[in-house]
Amino acid sequence: MTLEAIRYRSGSLQILDQLLLPHQTVYTEIRSVDDAYRAIKAMKVRGAPAIAIVGCLSLAVELRAGAGGDDPVTFIRESLCHLTSARPTAVNMGRAARELMEHAENESMEKNSEQLRESVITWIEEMLERDVNDNKKIGNYGAQHILSGVPRDSVTILTHCNTGSLATAGYGTALGVVRSLHALGRLKRLYCTETRPYNQGARLTAYEAVAEGLPATLITDSMAALTMRERGITAVVVGADRVVANGDTANKVGTYQLAITAKHHGIPFYVAAPSTSCDLSLESGRDVVIEVRPPEEMTSINGVAIAAPGIDVWNPSFDVTPHQLITGGIITELGVFLPSELQAALTGRLTAL
Amino acid sequence: MTLEAIRYRSGSLQILDQLLLPHQTVYTEIRSVDDAYRAIKAMKVRGAPAIAIVGCLSLAVELRAGAGGDDPVTFIRESLCHLTSARPTAVNMGRAARELMEHAENESMEKNSEQLRESVITWIEEMLERDVNDNKKIGNYGAQHILSGVPRDSVTILTHCNTGSLATAGYGTALGVVRSLHALGRLKRLYCTETRPYNQGARLTAYEAVAEGLPATLITDSMAALTMRERGITAVVVGADRVVANGDTANKVGTYQLAITAKHHGIPFYVAAPSTSCDLSLESGRDVVIEVRPPEEMTSINGVAIAAPGIDVWNPSFDVTPHQLITGGIITELGVFLPSELQAALTGRLTAL
Repeated sequence: MTLEAIRYRSGSLQILDQLLLPHQTVYTEIRSVDDAYRAIKAMKVRGAPAIAIVGCLSLAVELRAGAGGDDPVTFIRESLCHLTSARPTAVNMGRAARELMEHAENESMEKNSEQLRESVITWIEEMLERDVNDNKKIGNYGAQHILSGVPRDSVTILTHCNTGSLATAGYGTALGVVRSLHALGRLKRLYCTETRPYNQGARLTAYEAVAEGLPATLITDSMAALTMRERGITAVVVGADRVVANGDTANKVGTYQLAITAKHHGIPFYVAAPSTSCDLSLESGRDVVIEVRPPEEMTSINGVAIAAPGIDVWNPSFDVTPHQLITGGIITELGVFLPSELQAALTGRLTAL
Repeated sequence: MTLEAIRYRSGSLQILDQLLLPHQTVYTEIRSVDDAYRAIKAMKVRGAPAIAIVGCLSLAVELRAGAGGDDPVTFIRESLCHLTSARPTAVNMGRAARELMEHAENESMEKNSEQLRESVITWIEEMLERDVNDNKKIGNYGAQHILSGVPRDSVTILTHCNTGSLATAGYGTALGVVRSLHALGRLKRLYCTETRPYNQGARLTAYEAVAEGLPATLITDSMAALTMRERGITAVVVGADRVVANGDTANKVGTYQLAITAKHHGIPFYVAAPSTSCDLSLESGRDVVIEVRPPEEMTSINGVAIAAPGIDVWNPSFDVTPHQLITGGIITELGVFLPSELQAALTGRLTAL
């Protein structure tokens, strides 16, 4: 079976409630922009690409029901404003809102309300499709690149955090590469780290693996080195929150440590990310600000304390992996590039490998 | 305050119940060998050195009350047999039992029952004292060695798992080094990893740090690399379950990954272990069998599931750090040695550094 985190049919939207995972698989109906706002705010859906997609699709659902009446542009503007405010740090929703608003304003010059609604719905549906297709391209490029090093064998991949259907419009980035390898019949095994402190690996990646029948094994974050030495890891593939101009990559905390460990074992280390996650405005990873989250995320699980009371805690959410450690390459929907080639590739000065 | 995990006065023994830590600090009275057997079996006390000490002290308590009557040797033999069976894989209890039995049999040649009881009690009390003194020597040698590299500054140490008062007769091994640095006024900060999957760092090391007022910060295991880069770690110090002849060291899983990460950052990596943890009968770490523990230890905490149901799990308890990565040295009660010097040092062919 294929895991559907977002179920969209014209006029109807359901999302898999991630707050209830992995214990319960429950789809929540999203009937309005405000439903989506509340689902995003409550983190029933998470992952920057997924947030943007669910937000825009909720708007499409309302427009299909005729929302906005004679003035759909005002309705669209207010809806996008509301959606963007749910989690203002997620950049993808903001970018989608700007692009969609520009499209709606252009269309309003020459179309009536009904035509405008149709046009905006089409734009949103194409956005969903483009996002999934970009992920499939990432999966395909990544799988081919990894397999080019091992022409006949099946491969064993190690990944971190969750970068699958649950974090994107569908298919996934790093986990998309794993899906592609599995579809080609070349995935021997996936090792997924539990990814403390928020356990996205144990809760979400493991859930996706079980749901889709991927051969997968869960390890703790600190077992990665032993796994590399004992279990024949072919490549490490992770996602990215932001890739900057020189290829330095900000991603879930622990990524940097995995990259060091992979380098020590001579295992190629890949970052899988759509070009929209690349931020050429920053020169190096030193410019990325690391978000520090509340101690409680580390010292308790489901409200149960798991650490000694009174201990000081440092809980950075991300770390930056220097480009020198990204030895496999950066996998985008345009192809796989060395960190040093990324800038030229994204600005059209280099053809995909 | 000083944390007392084992409270012993002639004729009286109490242990800190580690099952209730870190939430409750409760001392349990151990009045008999059978009390100790049950406390060890239930893991109210853990850590191989601590198990041996508590077992032997419970025997001393019974002997002080006159146990064994006219045939104390038989009582001692049966008691040691019972104690050793509580957790047969813990080697220290077995070694202590053999040595103590030999002592009791020798003494029984020339002493009456009352004198024999006194002699055995003295032997046990000296064992407790020797163990704590060895740990203090480890602490002192380790602290001096680390400080020799930074003549004036205070230092920041990163450690893994629990190697403190709660795992030994008192003071601790790696955490003993940290205690010594603190006592010298030279500890700037201790970073302790939570140590998944059993969370000895978050539960026990953090507890000891809070109890004794050590400046300490808890991080997840995968934050170690970021901590090394951002927080100026002077040295990494860990304990050992077994150090073999060439210096390869088996210790809590994650140690190997920490050693790789320390090497990448040019940070000295130390192993702190009494000579009784060194096993010269094994040539290299390849000969060490790695215990694999039940999946539930990783997939649930306090009975609450934290991973997707149905996911395959690999849960090795230990890993082996190759001696090449032990760049600081091996800290014993005899001094600090390079891995290549260990064998000569332990067989008396080398003087302590």
